[in-house]
Amino acid sequence: MDATTRIEAALEMALERVESQNSPPKLAAAIRYAVFPGGARIRPRLCLAVARACGDDQPQITEAAASAIEFMHCASLVHDDLPCFDNADRRRGKATVHKAFGEPLAVLVGDGLIVLAFETLARTTLIAPARFAGLVSILARASGTPYGIVAGQAWECESNISVSDYHRAKTGSLFAAATMAGAQAAGVQPDAWRLLGERIGEAFQVADDIQDMIADPALTGKPCRQDVIHDRPNALRELGVEGAVDRLKTLLVGAVESIPNCPGSSDLRGVILAESKRFFPKGAGRHAA
Amino acid sequence: MDATTRIEAALEMALERVESQNSPPKLAAAIRYAVFPGGARIRPRLCLAVARACGDDQPQITEAAASAIEFMHCASLVHDDLPCFDNADRRRGKATVHKAFGEPLAVLVGDGLIVLAFETLARTTLIAPARFAGLVSILARASGTPYGIVAGQAWECESNISVSDYHRAKTGSLFAAATMAGAQAAGVQPDAWRLLGERIGEAFQVADDIQDMIADPALTGKPCRQDVIHDRPNALRELGVEGAVDRLKTLLVGAVESIPNCPGSSDLRGVILAESKRFFPKGAGRHAA
Repeated sequence: MDATTRIEAALEMALERVESQNSPPKLAAAIRYAVFPGGARIRPRLCLAVARACGDDQPQITEAAASAIEFMHCASLVHDDLPCFDNADRRRGKATVHKAFGEPLAVLVGDGLIVLAFETLARTTLIAPARFAGLVSILARASGTPYGIVAGQAWECESNISVSDYHRAKTGSLFAAATMAGAQAAGVQPDAWRLLGERIGEAFQVADDIQDMIADPALTGKPCRQDVIHDRPNALRELGVEGAVDRLKTLLVGAVESIPNCPGSSDLRGVILAESKRFFPKGAGRHAA
Repeated sequence: MDATTRIEAALEMALERVESQNSPPKLAAAIRYAVFPGGARIRPRLCLAVARACGDDQPQITEAAASAIEFMHCASLVHDDLPCFDNADRRRGKATVHKAFGEPLAVLVGDGLIVLAFETLARTTLIAPARFAGLVSILARASGTPYGIVAGQAWECESNISVSDYHRAKTGSLFAAATMAGAQAAGVQPDAWRLLGERIGEAFQVADDIQDMIADPALTGKPCRQDVIHDRPNALRELGVEGAVDRLKTLLVGAVESIPNCPGSSDLRGVILAESKRFFPKGAGRHAA
């Protein structure tokens, strides 16, 4: 089964419980709307790729880990889009959750997805209890404060911020969780896998900065120039287009070099290089050729 | 050590990590503000009381479970107070989190506390991995959808609601988690403990309804008559003051009767009856004598 099929099926299965007849119907619909159709699913794909490189001997654990990370990511998108943050109207080519379902449900969708992330992990406990405990720790660290995406978003409320702390928490943390959870799900000690995730996360951030500045909203499905509007740090504002694309390439080379020794390291290298093509935004194609 | 001291110390210890120098300072301050000083800490007290009745042979697990439940409760208060829900100005006798720190930080405080709840449990894995897994499941079920507090709040966005489903999810679920987690933390099968929590939760809901209608905001530290303002179901609107107080007493008797057999059942009965005195709001004292 290819990665896309595995991820979509795993997300679908995890959502089934949410959509039981006992759920408030609007909340269930809004949660589905926030998860499907997805974006590039980069984080769960990365999680699966690392698990495969490490043997992937417990596929259900891997799929639960990948789903949990994607749910946490979706939660952060829904809350970041809220009027009190980015006040975004469009996401993944359609209305944002608060525009489609109203602000109360958007708050609850985010909350519900955070819980669902941990609940999805919890459903694997009987299969491999020791791996489960590590996965909860990895996910929690990547999501909360001081090192997770909640902290990353909160740095935007501070006047004195370290740009690298901000990016590491807001973006890098969940990429690091994706690689570490992939290893942990396959029964491999996860710490050696942090660096790979952090470097891919940093590369993704630069790619996102480029996309924000130059991509065509009709192609990306979300508004552009948000970093200028919200006065956020942006690699392209600092380095220019060519400089940012060069930086992105350097980061990806560094990422591939940091892959720990494992049975499938050579395949993983290929997957990461192939996946990273998505990092070069369509509008920046001429620079990334 | 008495229950209050244990709970406050455990919450304090769990917050230490959040307040590391790497945390965004405003977020860390806002999380502390949302947790301290607390309300009556009814849920963690109940969790501790059940654990004690079941032997409480792993006090650190019990304290983590009680803290996790209180963090989840605090998260729900912060989000429920947001302008898009109750738009409340006051809570626990001071400004609500969004009034004191702004709406973006209030959203993030809620998110951060949900994560912290699971993270607090995760820190106990090395002590008793088997108990940990059950605690994560109990907390997740009580928090998400279809049966948890997120679903409970979401029922307010529906036009056709079952009042008992609404109350069971919004209030009962976390009380049931408190009793079940107390048992689970002490290594006792938790399912038999659900009914006790649900009944106490139901009693608490009636007490809250009475308080909402007749208590003095100067004494309770929060505005009253919110159920009328937001047109929510309220036992007192249905039964009148005397009827609601009678119902509260009946529910508490039923709760005590549902205590499962355990070494400390007699002590637990006493604790629950003593704690339930807090359920009778100050303004309703003359009815609850």
